[in-house]
Amino acid sequence: MSALGIFVWELLGTGTLILLGNGVVANVVLRKNNGHQAGTLFITFGWAFGVFTGASIAAPSGAHLNPAVTLGLAIADKTPWKDVPFYVAGQLVGAIIGAILCWATYKLQFDDHPEPEGTLGIFSTAPQIRSYGWNVVTEVIGTFVLVAWILLSPTVKAGDGGVPEFGNSALGYAGVSFVVLVIGISLGGPTGYAINPARDLGPRIAYAFILPIRGKRDGDWGYSWVPVLGPLAGGALAALLYLAVHNLT
Amino acid sequence: MSALGIFVWELLGTGTLILLGNGVVANVVLRKNNGHQAGTLFITFGWAFGVFTGASIAAPSGAHLNPAVTLGLAIADKTPWKDVPFYVAGQLVGAIIGAILCWATYKLQFDDHPEPEGTLGIFSTAPQIRSYGWNVVTEVIGTFVLVAWILLSPTVKAGDGGVPEFGNSALGYAGVSFVVLVIGISLGGPTGYAINPARDLGPRIAYAFILPIRGKRDGDWGYSWVPVLGPLAGGALAALLYLAVHNLT
Amino acid sequence: MSALGIFVWELLGTGTLILLGNGVVANVVLRKNNGHQAGTLFITFGWAFGVFTGASIAAPSGAHLNPAVTLGLAIADKTPWKDVPFYVAGQLVGAIIGAILCWATYKLQFDDHPEPEGTLGIFSTAPQIRSYGWNVVTEVIGTFVLVAWILLSPTVKAGDGGVPEFGNSALGYAGVSFVVLVIGISLGGPTGYAINPARDLGPRIAYAFILPIRGKRDGDWGYSWVPVLGPLAGGALAALLYLAVHNLT
Amino acid sequence: MSALGIFVWELLGTGTLILLGNGVVANVVLRKNNGHQAGTLFITFGWAFGVFTGASIAAPSGAHLNPAVTLGLAIADKTPWKDVPFYVAGQLVGAIIGAILCWATYKLQFDDHPEPEGTLGIFSTAPQIRSYGWNVVTEVIGTFVLVAWILLSPTVKAGDGGVPEFGNSALGYAGVSFVVLVIGISLGGPTGYAINPARDLGPRIAYAFILPIRGKRDGDWGYSWVPVLGPLAGGALAALLYLAVHNLT
Repeated sequence: MSALGIFVWELLGTGTLILLGNGVVANVVLRKNNGHQAGTLFITFGWAFGVFTGASIAAPSGAHLNPAVTLGLAIADKTPWKDVPFYVAGQLVGAIIGAILCWATYKLQFDDHPEPEGTLGIFSTAPQIRSYGWNVVTEVIGTFVLVAWILLSPTVKAGDGGVPEFGNSALGYAGVSFVVLVIGISLGGPTGYAINPARDLGPRIAYAFILPIRGKRDGDWGYSWVPVLGPLAGGALAALLYLAVHNLT
Repeated sequence: MSALGIFVWELLGTGTLILLGNGVVANVVLRKNNGHQAGTLFITFGWAFGVFTGASIAAPSGAHLNPAVTLGLAIADKTPWKDVPFYVAGQLVGAIIGAILCWATYKLQFDDHPEPEGTLGIFSTAPQIRSYGWNVVTEVIGTFVLVAWILLSPTVKAGDGGVPEFGNSALGYAGVSFVVLVIGISLGGPTGYAINPARDLGPRIAYAFILPIRGKRDGDWGYSWVPVLGPLAGGALAALLYLAVHNLT
Repeated sequence: MSALGIFVWELLGTGTLILLGNGVVANVVLRKNNGHQAGTLFITFGWAFGVFTGASIAAPSGAHLNPAVTLGLAIADKTPWKDVPFYVAGQLVGAIIGAILCWATYKLQFDDHPEPEGTLGIFSTAPQIRSYGWNVVTEVIGTFVLVAWILLSPTVKAGDGGVPEFGNSALGYAGVSFVVLVIGISLGGPTGYAINPARDLGPRIAYAFILPIRGKRDGDWGYSWVPVLGPLAGGALAALLYLAVHNLT
Repeated sequence: MSALGIFVWELLGTGTLILLGNGVVANVVLRKNNGHQAGTLFITFGWAFGVFTGASIAAPSGAHLNPAVTLGLAIADKTPWKDVPFYVAGQLVGAIIGAILCWATYKLQFDDHPEPEGTLGIFSTAPQIRSYGWNVVTEVIGTFVLVAWILLSPTVKAGDGGVPEFGNSALGYAGVSFVVLVIGISLGGPTGYAINPARDLGPRIAYAFILPIRGKRDGDWGYSWVPVLGPLAGGALAALLYLAVHNLT
């Protein structure tokens, strides 16, 4: 696939993912919403089927939607290194656009919200207990499960162009959405499972520099490197496990 | 497919969708129900698998069930313009019949309900914060995701007769129900995600002019154009995006 | 398939369905359970995936599990009338055995329960508002949706032996479980969606005549005909609709 | 498959299952988590899709992940008895590693938790009402459903190497995850549905002997044999039923 194609499809898929993922948190956090305080299962379903929707749109480029997935696939020799910048650029631009569309969907609710300094959590993750080292560990383990599943499961086929395929029907992408669902349910407690640098950094940029939310806080830049570094390390470790297992068995 | 066939299958599918979609809201809103106050996730599951059931019935006509989908497919040159009136007629008549069957299912609960003026919300949508311009934006974005997914995802095939296919097994329709689920979860907070003119207008007509609910209010006609115009605009915009992407890549 | 085969597979499938369906209600109703008061969505998931498990076991006999389904398929000429008694016998015996296994699973909880007269609701349905005519209407409509989906959806194939097939993989049975899920969510409010004479009558017989529950009440026989007659009428009506639609289009 | 291959794939799959299954309980039990007190449906989803993720990774070895499944398959002559020790060893070692990774994910939350003696329940099961005989009955019935489904359902194919296949796509493993979901929902009330000796014993060993949790209690060894013996007996009974049914029909 051409560099332009990679950029466009990753932008469309990641934009959809972030619109829907940020959207569910806006629905739960902001008052005067049908989903106000609808609970954690509701939030994890939003992100999981946001992945389903975005990934089944971005199938032509392999539906990475996540620099940690792209990095793991490159280390495992399933995506050419020369394509990596176009994947990541599409993912990051898409994430910023998705965050802006989420804001437009909930414009009236943002204006109505009495605690605007709490709105960063709609867009980006934050730890329940701040301790950077262990926060990184949590993000490493969550992302490791995602990328290890993509690489190790023989049910996920590597297709032409070096990109993985999840089957030739939309339902194929239900698999990865179930994996993201359970990562959120089972490993998302301490840090909100960024498990994707673009998912966290793109909306953080949109929040801090673009969105006209009255009374908003800063981008919590002191924490912002954790949900970038942790997922990249988790994706790389999963690729190393994949290479080791395939040498062993 | 013949015009009669389109009308009949769209009527059957949309009638099933509205019976099940209006039904879950009746279950939650009306007291003396097993699902009374069962929450927002419960409601979004009802609509999502209402789409699954209706769409897998209406497979012979392409399972549009929604004038915004029909419009988007016509603009994208996947449904003949001459068939559009038969699609929309079947959808609207089906939606009215579905709303009547929902009322019959919950007849005793409607009679028992102490606040009959609140029963319009069982049948049609209303905004949490009324501001027509931004309410339209929310409905445009929600419908845009639905129709963009149908058109852009290579996992959804256009079949014979110009209508889309979601695969040749019932499970194929799980894909579109997952997309409707996440639209409800992630974008349904402000306006209740009509994302379908027939879904909103048909039951509104049934409520205002047909159903014998004691003490019922009027049809809130001042708002009724928003969940018609917004979804049609969203479907059209998704079709334009589809045409642009296919020229580009 | 032989009469014995039909009897055995329907017994195994319906027994599994009732063990799991009665089980979720026991989990929610009886105190000192992990699922005590876990809510209506929890209950509908239990019944839905009970159908999935039982139906994918009973695939060799066509996985009816329900006399209303058997009746509808016989009227639609998809199951031989001569096989109907063996289907229904297997379903009823299986339902009784499933109810007994549910009791054994929750033996300690039954002994501990302070209100034993409320335990009939674990096994059989009861209306929220008792009015036999409208209760029948609700059961007719719910069962009509189930059997109409089985007959009308072109995604459900009629296989050899006159019995329907839902696909040749376990996942094929996810479709019917999604339909049962949404019937519970959307139409189960007033009467608890028996939608199956064996599902209601078998456990009622087990409760009234077999299970050693201290302080139990009678079988509420005055209502017991509603969840038998309603579902049979709904299944028959769906078969008539199927025949009409296939003459029309 | 070689003995080493069986060991490695079962270790990877069971490790993933236990990381995710123990993880959801940690998320719900420990305060300062996004999923704190998120409810029983949340917990059953975590275990169910933990099975999905682990099983679709361990597909090369047949994805047993459970000594009771291995025993049932060996009795039914679908897995060679000589491979059984390698299956069980991989499962047990994987379960211990998964429990350790769960602890690392939630390290800060464990340190913060005010009631450390209650943390055994994150790793291993305990009955709501302690009475060993009936607790065994509950575990027998739950495991019987799981192994009977694997053996009896014609939708689950026995593949080469004597191990079962759930289809050649990741989605094939959704079937077994739905069955585990409904066992948790419907039969998990009294004992927490171990239904797997490795799932219970491995994390119990990790908790008692390895994990540095301050103020932790002992491993409740008096109960520890119940979730080992019950599942093994349930798996064996299911295999006997399978052999009887196949002789009969």
